Amino acid sequence: MNDRALRTVTSGLGGFHNGVVREAGFDITVASEIMAIFCLATDLKDLENRLGNIVLGYTRGGQPVTVRELNAHGAMTALLRDAFQPNIVQTMENNPALMHGGPFANIAHGCNSVAATTIGLKLADYVVTEAGFGADLGAEKFFNIKCRKAGLSPDAVVLVATIKALKMQGGVAKEDLGAEDVTALKAGLKNLERHIRNLGKFGVPVVVAINRYTADSDAEVAAILDFCKGFGVRAISCTHWADGGEGAVDLAECVVELCDSNAAQFRTLYSDDMSLWEKTATIAREIYGAEDIIADKKVRAQFARYEREGYGSYPICMAKTQYSFSTDPNLLGAPSGHHVPIREIRLAAGAEFIVVVCGAIMTMPGLPRVPAANAIRVNDEGRIEGLF
Amino acid sequence: MNDRALRTVTSGLGGFHNGVVREAGFDITVASEIMAIFCLATDLKDLENRLGNIVLGYTRGGQPVTVRELNAHGAMTALLRDAFQPNIVQTMENNPALMHGGPFANIAHGCNSVAATTIGLKLADYVVTEAGFGADLGAEKFFNIKCRKAGLSPDAVVLVATIKALKMQGGVAKEDLGAEDVTALKAGLKNLERHIRNLGKFGVPVVVAINRYTADSDAEVAAILDFCKGFGVRAISCTHWADGGEGAVDLAECVVELCDSNAAQFRTLYSDDMSLWEKTATIAREIYGAEDIIADKKVRAQFARYEREGYGSYPICMAKTQYSFSTDPNLLGAPSGHHVPIREIRLAAGAEFIVVVCGAIMTMPGLPRVPAANAIRVNDEGRIEGLF
Amino acid sequence: MNDRALRTVTSGLGGFHNGVVREAGFDITVASEIMAIFCLATDLKDLENRLGNIVLGYTRGGQPVTVRELNAHGAMTALLRDAFQPNIVQTMENNPALMHGGPFANIAHGCNSVAATTIGLKLADYVVTEAGFGADLGAEKFFNIKCRKAGLSPDAVVLVATIKALKMQGGVAKEDLGAEDVTALKAGLKNLERHIRNLGKFGVPVVVAINRYTADSDAEVAAILDFCKGFGVRAISCTHWADGGEGAVDLAECVVELCDSNAAQFRTLYSDDMSLWEKTATIAREIYGAEDIIADKKVRAQFARYEREGYGSYPICMAKTQYSFSTDPNLLGAPSGHHVPIREIRLAAGAEFIVVVCGAIMTMPGLPRVPAANAIRVNDEGRIEGLF
Amino acid sequence: MNDRALRTVTSGLGGFHNGVVREAGFDITVASEIMAIFCLATDLKDLENRLGNIVLGYTRGGQPVTVRELNAHGAMTALLRDAFQPNIVQTMENNPALMHGGPFANIAHGCNSVAATTIGLKLADYVVTEAGFGADLGAEKFFNIKCRKAGLSPDAVVLVATIKALKMQGGVAKEDLGAEDVTALKAGLKNLERHIRNLGKFGVPVVVAINRYTADSDAEVAAILDFCKGFGVRAISCTHWADGGEGAVDLAECVVELCDSNAAQFRTLYSDDMSLWEKTATIAREIYGAEDIIADKKVRAQFARYEREGYGSYPICMAKTQYSFSTDPNLLGAPSGHHVPIREIRLAAGAEFIVVVCGAIMTMPGLPRVPAANAIRVNDEGRIEGLF
Repeated sequence: MNDRALRTVTSGLGGFHNGVVREAGFDITVASEIMAIFCLATDLKDLENRLGNIVLGYTRGGQPVTVRELNAHGAMTALLRDAFQPNIVQTMENNPALMHGGPFANIAHGCNSVAATTIGLKLADYVVTEAGFGADLGAEKFFNIKCRKAGLSPDAVVLVATIKALKMQGGVAKEDLGAEDVTALKAGLKNLERHIRNLGKFGVPVVVAINRYTADSDAEVAAILDFCKGFGVRAISCTHWADGGEGAVDLAECVVELCDSNAAQFRTLYSDDMSLWEKTATIAREIYGAEDIIADKKVRAQFARYEREGYGSYPICMAKTQYSFSTDPNLLGAPSGHHVPIREIRLAAGAEFIVVVCGAIMTMPGLPRVPAANAIRVNDEGRIEGLF
Repeated sequence: MNDRALRTVTSGLGGFHNGVVREAGFDITVASEIMAIFCLATDLKDLENRLGNIVLGYTRGGQPVTVRELNAHGAMTALLRDAFQPNIVQTMENNPALMHGGPFANIAHGCNSVAATTIGLKLADYVVTEAGFGADLGAEKFFNIKCRKAGLSPDAVVLVATIKALKMQGGVAKEDLGAEDVTALKAGLKNLERHIRNLGKFGVPVVVAINRYTADSDAEVAAILDFCKGFGVRAISCTHWADGGEGAVDLAECVVELCDSNAAQFRTLYSDDMSLWEKTATIAREIYGAEDIIADKKVRAQFARYEREGYGSYPICMAKTQYSFSTDPNLLGAPSGHHVPIREIRLAAGAEFIVVVCGAIMTMPGLPRVPAANAIRVNDEGRIEGLF
Repeated sequence: MNDRALRTVTSGLGGFHNGVVREAGFDITVASEIMAIFCLATDLKDLENRLGNIVLGYTRGGQPVTVRELNAHGAMTALLRDAFQPNIVQTMENNPALMHGGPFANIAHGCNSVAATTIGLKLADYVVTEAGFGADLGAEKFFNIKCRKAGLSPDAVVLVATIKALKMQGGVAKEDLGAEDVTALKAGLKNLERHIRNLGKFGVPVVVAINRYTADSDAEVAAILDFCKGFGVRAISCTHWADGGEGAVDLAECVVELCDSNAAQFRTLYSDDMSLWEKTATIAREIYGAEDIIADKKVRAQFARYEREGYGSYPICMAKTQYSFSTDPNLLGAPSGHHVPIREIRLAAGAEFIVVVCGAIMTMPGLPRVPAANAIRVNDEGRIEGLF
Repeated sequence: MNDRALRTVTSGLGGFHNGVVREAGFDITVASEIMAIFCLATDLKDLENRLGNIVLGYTRGGQPVTVRELNAHGAMTALLRDAFQPNIVQTMENNPALMHGGPFANIAHGCNSVAATTIGLKLADYVVTEAGFGADLGAEKFFNIKCRKAGLSPDAVVLVATIKALKMQGGVAKEDLGAEDVTALKAGLKNLERHIRNLGKFGVPVVVAINRYTADSDAEVAAILDFCKGFGVRAISCTHWADGGEGAVDLAECVVELCDSNAAQFRTLYSDDMSLWEKTATIAREIYGAEDIIADKKVRAQFARYEREGYGSYPICMAKTQYSFSTDPNLLGAPSGHHVPIREIRLAAGAEFIVVVCGAIMTMPGLPRVPAANAIRVNDEGRIEGLF
């Protein structure tokens, strides 16, 4: 099956004996609200309850129809029961790691499961978790959604920076990123500065980790170190890409230090009782540097509807490009004064957030030109080959 | 999901980036050609080869497109690898039984897997297998398709008869089948006679098993025993429904006797080298008592096409009603002189047979009004409830 | 627009604001029930009433939904008002001819409008009308549907025969029809004989018109003349194809003679009060030489339903191949003893007949590879070119 | 037919014999590009040429496919030939008026046909034409599209104002517009002022026509007259709604005076050689008072594509709400500093403009709940009733 062909599917055709026609499509697992729920649920009861809360559609009279009304939440929980146990795996250096859950950072909140994080916190002295896709998306949602919901209170933030990305933010074309360019790098540092300032708004101390590549020059690394020093924030050049754990020892020690300092005063960016519009505007202004958000009548009406229906206390899950603080991927550096146009909003009543869409979201990406399945077979010994 | 809504599905909509529009639908597992292949394959290599042979469609130029050309047969075999191991279970009396595979007796050949039968023959002195859906369908396909393909040579046939079914064939209405009616029963015995004569054409000795219900009268049972005696065939009244294995001891001894007599001279009804039309006509005349088969130009052209494409040696897999020897469910008893109209024919190039459709086939039946899923849940101990 | 693309159309997609999804398609004008109604209506009131009677579909509860319930019959009549006036045109020899209406002879009854015929009968001493598509279809429906409904009583029948067609019925391949072949022609005459006998059943005197082509040999023409003489029916060789009206003078005089003889005792083949099944079987036996009709449970149930709903008195409109008296286009000559399988039946409640479908019907044929539209344009004088 | 059901239609279903599947929909006549072309074409040759230029879609390789390549422009012109002759009708006071063409003011340019205007200019001393839908849309497009294309040079503008609309722009709720409210009216006059200033940018003298309703108070009328006087623009209270032509004599005399003064120095707002983006931004800034336009990557890429394909010289046809100078219908009065988000752009290669869509456009509105067709019928005299 070509997965693209599943993007837009009409079922229930062939006459009324076949039920009601429905125009829909398949989403990949990570884009499903079920994945977001799975990652936010605290236990099986909570999982079942959230699955039951999913709003599938609306009656002609405008009343939401939930999974609970279809009485499918019990069976769904049964299907997910075993998957809900977090997986423990080991790194190449034999350290334990929990791998569990993977919601899209675009249409969902982009963090691993609350269950895994909670277990990690019970088992280890220090737990590191990832919140990727740009700190304006990944970190913002980790704080405002996952930490808020799961009652987590992080002690420190590692802000990962690469020299190539900073040069790109400084205006260098993709094909020229290999060459040393300290001037452009310095121009791009205003992007890093914005991220540092943004993270400060959550009250958690920050360390910048320079994820160093072999091509990066010492002058470039020095420029970042200098900049951060002037800014009162520690930056550490890390070489784990080349040297493994050994290359990140300095960083680890710094993180331990930050954690043990008890300097963190974690707070979310907005309170539950702000209006949905105001929450969105707050993220746009405080994190994106925007002047305001704009939306047409239909979107405004939907905000009002969700509040009327009792979803007003939900946090906002922003879906925008990861290439710019603005919604225009070409606006580099640290733009300000721009407007954030909202295309549509979607309710995730089981995940308990409102998705605010500021651009096109692809929930069923295309497979590679040669499907992985082409290489998979059972060999003469009856073993399956070609999975990796 | 309402399964009826899956009967007719259009995918690939939404523009050319989403691939090619395809109007298709889901079939339940047992109606898939993959299930038929699974049950006819002799080993994993054969399974892979047959999966590769499936014809998915035709190019604009009329050339068949196979799974092999999509290079998906390896991955499909990998998915089926573990399922291909037959399951051994036990009966309520702790006897071993192999449960493996379940192709529809309508669109497919209706027997369990060749793998299970072959294993059974290696493990036990006597192996009993089922071929249901009326002996004109079940037994005919077991002999002409499964035995032909797997090189099996059965020693005896148990023809199961119920008194209610024979009275129905004798003209009694469904709601009156409870009352004793020896006259109607005798009228219905010409249906049993036809089945006995049909089975004789395969050269295998037959014993009739009367699957006795508590409501059946002694006079009715006696009428069958008498009829069969006059016919030179043993009939045995069995009470396993009420008494378990004990109630079928006589039958079992008779079967052993028939098997040990080496009286079987098994032969299929038609040879591989007959034309597809002639094979179909042979089944219709010899098994159904029909005068001939009829088909419009389009169907005749398709027969010719399949022969041209090299599928002429395949056996025929008939799809017709199980309520009558004819294609008209109201024609009871042992009709003759009728015509068998062929609606369409389908190629199963992986299963290696041609499906000849003589009526409507439903490959995605409707679920019950209350889905089984409604009762399934995870209870407070974390156990799944409501599966049965 | 490629007209083929209109065969299968799904409308009402895009959500509930756009109404109800409907899977349907376009039919060409001549295949529409409206055309059949238009040709059977006696006046504007009758037209409006019949349009109102069209059954568009059924409610979930199984009740028919008519055009009248949608209150669209008035507007439809308004649209057809001017078209309902028959057109008078002239032939190349300046004789008047009424051209009005053209229902398909397959899914409909194949004759021009009752309005035109009625006007013709008021204006002229002799009115000739056409009922093409083989006398087993065209003439049968003209008599059983149009004459029955309009109270027409024809005085004579001209049965048009071509030598090529008769040789084809005698077994000559299409590409060999050019060569003289009196033997094959004589073999084919049993087809002509069947048509003559069939027409006799309607009580109207027949004359055979040999529509002579330049390639036809005298010996072939003589063979037909001889055959018909032995049969007591006049046959006349006509050359109007080459000579215009002059070439059909003998035929015209014969027709006048037959009409003035008052020999006709017109009767339909079946009465209104026969069951729909029996009417169909009568046509199959009496006209097609069949032994019987066959139909599965679903079709039989639909016959019963239409009778229950009050449509039992309607005549039957057969839809079958015009190449054979049977439903198999390869069964040439005058086959008998065959069975007529009925695929489906359709209600034309406005036209007031039941369509009995015995094969595939194409109600939207494909345009030629080069659309006629390609040649149409407005020239420099503002005149439209390329219409013919 | 429910017209809503035609909004989204999938054709070409049913297999490859039925052509290629196409997901499209019907538009009402006035929303069709053909209507826009029809109204901009100067003669039949130009009409044919423009129809041929319509871009129907793109090949897989990205090349535009035109009507000309399908060779359909000749036939389309033939269909439109008679319709292309302007209709002359008379008003209730027996003055001649040309009624010809009606393109939507949203997706198209909203003015009647160039053919009618040109004929009018040949026949009369003074020609009045309408360009409705708010002067920011109607007048802007009349000047920038129709006048530019047809070489028209208007002598005067009548800016029609109603007191209710001005009170609404001043913040009065719809249900309170009936009551006198001079304060709100005065607040709303900044909307009128913006329109007056905008029209001045086209170099044509303006007179304000107060389209007076019986409910309007003298104080309200006086407020407008005062305001305009202070502004150096004449305003005239008209009562043609109540008094017919008599009520607009003052206005007519003023218009004649303005025309005869030769004060007009008509110019379009932007030149052909500006980029499409810059043209759009010019309209947004100069007419809407916006700070800038914004658009995502996809829209920007399409602007670039159209320029690359040679459509860069086309004027812009804006599609936005008529309720506000901005794209937000709630922003009343004379907003400034706002951003205009562009949702999508569309090419009208036959009409020779680029449609810039700043909101939802409905090209197939819903019919009234009771279709007009319900009242239409042919009466007993054969006359059609119920059309109006």
